[in-house]
Amino acid sequence: MSVIYDRVALIGLGLIAGSMSLAMRQAGLVREVVGYARSAETRATAAEIGLVDRVTDSAADAVRDADLIVLAVPVGAMGEIAAEIAPFLKKGAVVTDVGSVKQAVIEAVAPHIPEGVHFIPSHPLAGTEHSGPRSGFASLFSNRWWLLTPPEGADRAEVDRLASLIRGIGANVEDMDAAHHDTVLAVTSHTPHLIAYTMVGVADHIKRVTESEVIKYSAAGFRDFTRIAASDPTMWRDVFLQNKEAVLDILGRFAEELFVLQRAIRMGDGQHLHDYFTRTRAIRRGIIEAGQDTAAPDFGRSPGAAAPDAAKPEPAKAAGQD
Amino acid sequence: MSVIYDRVALIGLGLIAGSMSLAMRQAGLVREVVGYARSAETRATAAEIGLVDRVTDSAADAVRDADLIVLAVPVGAMGEIAAEIAPFLKKGAVVTDVGSVKQAVIEAVAPHIPEGVHFIPSHPLAGTEHSGPRSGFASLFSNRWWLLTPPEGADRAEVDRLASLIRGIGANVEDMDAAHHDTVLAVTSHTPHLIAYTMVGVADHIKRVTESEVIKYSAAGFRDFTRIAASDPTMWRDVFLQNKEAVLDILGRFAEELFVLQRAIRMGDGQHLHDYFTRTRAIRRGIIEAGQDTAAPDFGRSPGAAAPDAAKPEPAKAAGQD
Repeated sequence: MSVIYDRVALIGLGLIAGSMSLAMRQAGLVREVVGYARSAETRATAAEIGLVDRVTDSAADAVRDADLIVLAVPVGAMGEIAAEIAPFLKKGAVVTDVGSVKQAVIEAVAPHIPEGVHFIPSHPLAGTEHSGPRSGFASLFSNRWWLLTPPEGADRAEVDRLASLIRGIGANVEDMDAAHHDTVLAVTSHTPHLIAYTMVGVADHIKRVTESEVIKYSAAGFRDFTRIAASDPTMWRDVFLQNKEAVLDILGRFAEELFVLQRAIRMGDGQHLHDYFTRTRAIRRGIIEAGQDTAAPDFGRSPGAAAPDAAKPEPAKAAGQD
Repeated sequence: MSVIYDRVALIGLGLIAGSMSLAMRQAGLVREVVGYARSAETRATAAEIGLVDRVTDSAADAVRDADLIVLAVPVGAMGEIAAEIAPFLKKGAVVTDVGSVKQAVIEAVAPHIPEGVHFIPSHPLAGTEHSGPRSGFASLFSNRWWLLTPPEGADRAEVDRLASLIRGIGANVEDMDAAHHDTVLAVTSHTPHLIAYTMVGVADHIKRVTESEVIKYSAAGFRDFTRIAASDPTMWRDVFLQNKEAVLDILGRFAEELFVLQRAIRMGDGQHLHDYFTRTRAIRRGIIEAGQDTAAPDFGRSPGAAAPDAAKPEPAKAAGQD
C-alpha cells in the first residue's frame, strides 16, 4: 500500500496507540511514527521495544510537523492535552482521537483546535483486557469497527483520507452522529463493563465464599466477567464520568429488567425465565454470523493452557495471533 | 488406565453426558456406555454419531445392570427420572448426577434411591455455550473442577471409586457440603449467568439502538456476555428455580453494589470508581495463575475467525482442541 500520511504523532502509548503504530508501519501506510506519553516509564519502554520510530520528551515535539495527530489518552485527559499541543499544530494537519466517548471529547477538544487544522473524532471498537506499551499488536483492528464522528462541515477529503488509513490497518469504517455513538456504546460497552466490575466486586466482598473458592470455581461462568473487569481503571473511570447520562439511562433499564427476572425467580415463574433466556440466544448467533466473535465452544479456550508469564505478551508474540 | 466401571448408564445425552462418554471411552475407563434421552431426536442423533455404545428406548433399559448411573438432565427433571429408574437399579450400583444445584437435587432424588444403592451427588464445573448431543468433546473436563457432595455416612470406597473415574477424564475432584456448594455456585455461576441474560435482554429491548448495531458493535465488551447468555434455557430456568434462596441473596448484594457505583457515576466520584476497578483486576490475575482461564489477550480470539457453520461443532472436531 502507498503512504497516506508522512508523519503520524501518537499522544499516549497504550494498547490502542501501540497497536496502531505496529499496524501502520507493517502496512507501510506512514513514513514515520513519533510517540509521546506522559509517563517517563512508558516512554522508556516504547523506545526500548521500538514501538514507534521516535519517542519525544514533550507532546509539543511530537506534534510539530505531524500530518496526523492521534490523541490516545484517557477521555478525561483529552481537553488538557489538546490545549497543550494546539500552538504547535501544523496548518492542514488532522487531529483525531480514539476515545470511547465522543460528545464529551468533542466538547473538550474542539475549542482548542486552531483554524486550518481538521478535527475528526474517532473510536476504534477494539481492545483487550491488557494495557500499557507492551500490550499492542498489529492485528488488533482486524475486522473490527472504527467509528468516525466528523462534525458538520468537516472536510470530506480529509475524512476519507483518515478512513483509508484505518481500512489499511484492517478495520471497517462507519460514520456516526456523536450523540448516537454515545448511546450505542453505553449499551454495547460501557454498561457491560460496569456490570462486570460490579459482579467481580460482589464476589470479592462475600465472606462466606473465599477468594480462593471464587478463583478455583470460576470456570462455571464468572471468569467471562473477569476479562473485561481487568481493563484499565483510569480509562474506565473516565468513560463513566464522561458518558454519564447515557450510562445512567442504560443502567436504569438494566436494573428494571433485573428486578423483573428476580421477581420471576422469587415467584417461581419458570415460563417467564425460559422465554427470556430463549430470546437472548438469537443475539449471540447474530454476533457470530457477523464475524464479531468466535463460534468455537468456550471462546476456543484451551483447558489449562494459561501461564502466568503470558499475561503481558510482547508485541511480537501477540502479533503472531492472526 | 484400567476399567473402573463395567457398565455406565447416561440418562440425558447433552453436552455433559456426551463429553463424559467420549472421555471415558477414550481413556478406557469403562467397558460399555449405555445412553438414554427423553427426546427421540436426541437418541437418534446420539446413535448416528456413535456418542455412546448403545442407545436404549427407555431409562429403565439403560440402568438395568449398570454399575454407574449418571443423571444428566435439567435439575428440575431429576426427581422424576429418579423415581422412574429406581425399581430397575442393581444392588451395589452408584447413582450420581451432574446438576448445577445440589441441595434441591438431593431432596428430589435421595428419597427414591433404594437400599443398597449408593447416591453420590456431583457437579462438574465445565461447560460451553453449546448444548445437545453434538456439543460434547472429550477434553471438556481437562483441568476443570468436579465437586462431590456425598451425604453423611456415604460409602467412602464408592466415593473414591467415582472420584478416580472423574480424575481419569481429566478433572480435579473436591468434596464439598451441599449447602456451601449452592452458595459458591450462586456467586461463581448462577448470578453471572442471570446478569448476562439481563444485559443481553436490555440490549434487545432498546429502541434507539437497533439489533444490527448491537451485533456490529459488540466487540467493545458486550459480546463477552453473550456467550453465557446463549446457554441452554431449560437448564438455566431450572437452576434459578432450584437455587432460589442463594441466587436471590447474591442478586440482592449485586444490586446494592451496582447502586453504589451508579451513585458514584451520578455524583462524579472518580476516586471511588478508580479504587473499585483497581481491586477487581487482582481476581483476574488469580484466575489465570490458577489455570482456570487463558491469559491470551481477548481470550485468544482470532479476529474475524468465526464462521456460521462452526457454531455447532461435531464432537470429533471440537475434541481436537486440546
